[in-house]
Amino acid sequence: MAELGKLPTIGPRTAARLAFHILDADEADVMRLAQLLAEVKQSVHPCQVCYGITEAEVCRVCADPRRDPRYICVVEESKDLMSIEKTGEFSGTYHVLGGSLSPMDGRGPDKLRITELIDRVTSQETVEVILATDPNNEGDATANFIARKLEATGVTVSRLASGLPVGGDLEYADDATLGRAFAGRVLARH
Amino acid sequence: MAELGKLPTIGPRTAARLAFHILDADEADVMRLAQLLAEVKQSVHPCQVCYGITEAEVCRVCADPRRDPRYICVVEESKDLMSIEKTGEFSGTYHVLGGSLSPMDGRGPDKLRITELIDRVTSQETVEVILATDPNNEGDATANFIARKLEATGVTVSRLASGLPVGGDLEYADDATLGRAFAGRVLARH
Repeated sequence: MAELGKLPTIGPRTAARLAFHILDADEADVMRLAQLLAEVKQSVHPCQVCYGITEAEVCRVCADPRRDPRYICVVEESKDLMSIEKTGEFSGTYHVLGGSLSPMDGRGPDKLRITELIDRVTSQETVEVILATDPNNEGDATANFIARKLEATGVTVSRLASGLPVGGDLEYADDATLGRAFAGRVLARH
Repeated sequence: MAELGKLPTIGPRTAARLAFHILDADEADVMRLAQLLAEVKQSVHPCQVCYGITEAEVCRVCADPRRDPRYICVVEESKDLMSIEKTGEFSGTYHVLGGSLSPMDGRGPDKLRITELIDRVTSQETVEVILATDPNNEGDATANFIARKLEATGVTVSRLASGLPVGGDLEYADDATLGRAFAGRVLARH
């Protein structure tokens, strides 16, 4: 039960519910689940190019000849890569950092795949690096750090837009978001 | 009770609670409240310049010599004006449309103060019109309509940025917002 409780989004009550479900279930079903978990764990590893999760040497995005490797979108985690894939807005490739800078938690630049990113940018033709870290303090700090590191390469470095969520109402935006939307206003298209 | 239920955010239950409170209250208190409501209603009217609510001829923003009238921020309602004032990002003046375009509800351009806006833009020196309508379908349609109307004037027309809310997490952004944040990405500052 304690082990189940270590899983994300699973608190003590859900852990207990899962534990009782497993105790009640057929032994064959439980063994199959256990084997699947072990297999997934053994077969999934980071992509050699972008460090996204994959079962092959190179992930599906990096292996796809229709994706443009001159555009690199930098994300904190593999799940962020999947979020951006779902939007269908991006036809380049990714780079998964493995987290964000957090001096408080002792996560310095050496804990992230920043050297690997710079190696990638300098060793191949790169048009643009898009920093898609989380829009919070740690994500902003990580993006700023990488932007400075990439300055010498001369590559274009961009950041996802901050602003009002689509479909919302001005009234419900918090002051910081509305202020950022105002400061970052864009030319209207006719 | 039915009259109280017409107030915004007040449903039938709250209306009943208010009605019983009023029945229980001192007659003097109720009369004072009634008079205050009548006075506010009689003394508050639209500003002659921006149509924001005011008790004077011209509202506090329009009357302030430190505000730059060459910048006009267009909002749907007076409450949006107050939201933007709270951010402290804007030192220009406003123009309150009185709503958004909604063909479904029969609200066409003639129901909004669009002619008044164009008169204002053409009759005084204007540097930029910032369209701060709601980031939803009706607000977007209203902004697009006004942008087209202002095209002939040659004035710069901008729109609040759409994107990720400040302090959030990429994972929790909906696809439309993340897609818009991606498409509207901006150069990173070093």
